[in-house]
Amino acid sequence: MVNMEINSIIDSMQGEGIESLIIFKSANITYLSGFSPSSMSVIVIDDDALLYTSKMDMEDASNRSHIPVTEFVSLDNIINNLKGPVGIEKTLPVSIYKKICNQHDTKLTDIIETKRMLKSTDEIKYIQKAIDIAEESLLNIEICGIENEVAANLEYQLKSHGSIKPAFETIIASGTRSSMPHATISSNNLLSPVMIDWGAVYNSYCSDLTRTFIENEEQSEILSIVLESQKEAIKVIKPGIKASYVDKVARGVIGEYGYGKNFIHSTGHGIGIEIHENPTLSVNSNFKLQKGMVITVEPGIYIKDKFGIRIEDDILIKNKAKVLTKLKKDMTLNIN
Amino acid sequence: MVNMEINSIIDSMQGEGIESLIIFKSANITYLSGFSPSSMSVIVIDDDALLYTSKMDMEDASNRSHIPVTEFVSLDNIINNLKGPVGIEKTLPVSIYKKICNQHDTKLTDIIETKRMLKSTDEIKYIQKAIDIAEESLLNIEICGIENEVAANLEYQLKSHGSIKPAFETIIASGTRSSMPHATISSNNLLSPVMIDWGAVYNSYCSDLTRTFIENEEQSEILSIVLESQKEAIKVIKPGIKASYVDKVARGVIGEYGYGKNFIHSTGHGIGIEIHENPTLSVNSNFKLQKGMVITVEPGIYIKDKFGIRIEDDILIKNKAKVLTKLKKDMTLNIN
Repeated sequence: MVNMEINSIIDSMQGEGIESLIIFKSANITYLSGFSPSSMSVIVIDDDALLYTSKMDMEDASNRSHIPVTEFVSLDNIINNLKGPVGIEKTLPVSIYKKICNQHDTKLTDIIETKRMLKSTDEIKYIQKAIDIAEESLLNIEICGIENEVAANLEYQLKSHGSIKPAFETIIASGTRSSMPHATISSNNLLSPVMIDWGAVYNSYCSDLTRTFIENEEQSEILSIVLESQKEAIKVIKPGIKASYVDKVARGVIGEYGYGKNFIHSTGHGIGIEIHENPTLSVNSNFKLQKGMVITVEPGIYIKDKFGIRIEDDILIKNKAKVLTKLKKDMTLNIN
Repeated sequence: MVNMEINSIIDSMQGEGIESLIIFKSANITYLSGFSPSSMSVIVIDDDALLYTSKMDMEDASNRSHIPVTEFVSLDNIINNLKGPVGIEKTLPVSIYKKICNQHDTKLTDIIETKRMLKSTDEIKYIQKAIDIAEESLLNIEICGIENEVAANLEYQLKSHGSIKPAFETIIASGTRSSMPHATISSNNLLSPVMIDWGAVYNSYCSDLTRTFIENEEQSEILSIVLESQKEAIKVIKPGIKASYVDKVARGVIGEYGYGKNFIHSTGHGIGIEIHENPTLSVNSNFKLQKGMVITVEPGIYIKDKFGIRIEDDILIKNKAKVLTKLKKDMTLNIN
């Protein structure tokens, strides 16, 4: 984020009739400043941008932030000095919103989230690196033993390869538990299939991948349907089409094979500083795809009391889809 | 959480003139139901309690939740059926708050957070287990090599010992970087001193500890001031005293030695499902300590461009302070 970007935000503010924009959401603070707060921090943008952070975070913020930093003393004082109408985030907690409303007109705005959807060359580089770390880490572990232990090994690899933390709680769901798309990890011995959903963080940017290790013909058949669904969905991705259309295509393939009711989540979502960003690729999504978006495409089939299979890749939208993930998708398991 | 507890919440609602309470905050959902949502979930309490969760989370929620579960179909539908006045959380995002306000009177409430401050026997058991896991994990690693690698080893141990994830991003800050209380981890070789702030999660409950490994006389002198501050603070803890008084005592000792300006954060905070809960132990805290609270006491001295030392233990408030952590505090370093 450079001054040019702050200026572009000020332009958007003027377009929406907003005099000052107050930013609390951690991911938005990271986006604008490069600094990830560990305590109460606020950015205010009016004629320029200023980051307020606690005494405790001052040293770290001063080292990292691209915008000027000052000590956070009191929220009341910051609110006093805002110029109305004040732009506020949709995620702002009500308690703070009410304080601002007592003194100023407010407008809910998506300015920062809208900018964050379109990734810069640097942001794409960081996401690619987060993908590389995630892929390298998976290749460095053995898929055997207990779920918990496999996750511990995978997260150790992520961290050793430079991912400050996992992008989210690693999911390792095996056997019948793989029918829960976001199953909590267990201390069970691995059964087949083994669904692994994991990601790395590099320079604040996330990757998000899923592979399912299969063992037999029945699982292989379901995997091939999921792969066909993913392939057809990726094929239709290009700037200008509706995000909901990609979902429709992915769902259509799975529906044709009679598993429509077993695809119980949306087809994908944007990734970036947060693991779930706009645009959403779902039935009701109102987004249109644009160049520079980075999204997941992750169809799955979940058969209760039997098993589930999901495959998830990360895709940059250029003139068509550019698949950023490289790991092969037909992973087989040998747990005996 | 049993039905008796839901009844006690309904009693509090009646006391505040609230007909229905709508709960979005993930930690509050976990507290009430035992289920940790991975997607949009809501609890509504009126005459009884009902958990709404997505199709994708239905299987997991049905297995884990202590309260009845139904599929989340639409937020509008849930809001339509609320009975006003509606109690809402202070952390509720403005976008949802506005939707509710369009149809109902609302009241900001702390009912759940207030209950969460006082831990039950089971909750204390889970926190104790999270402490035990954290302590055992630290004892299993060697404090040598690079910061990143030490953190990877520590988090591997946490996970192997049953902590589903670290309670927060492990802090390993060594050398001059230890003067930043929440320094982001680096790939630097360890220098002295080495400050480690880490915690485990057991059954959704967190522990939070800090030890600083020292090497020389200068660091040892600062450590002894920090330990004296912590000891005096713990000594005054009992039900009925102000949380701000504990902060005053801790700060007083450090001030006497001339390091008042180097203690740049508050003395402690509650722990539980979240790593930072009420009560806060700070200068301006309005809380009084009560039996059943579990808090951290974590004074520190941070000398810019030199080093920082912090020690943090977890304390249950009974008739006086019961220190739940057992790890020794005079850790020395041998990095050569």
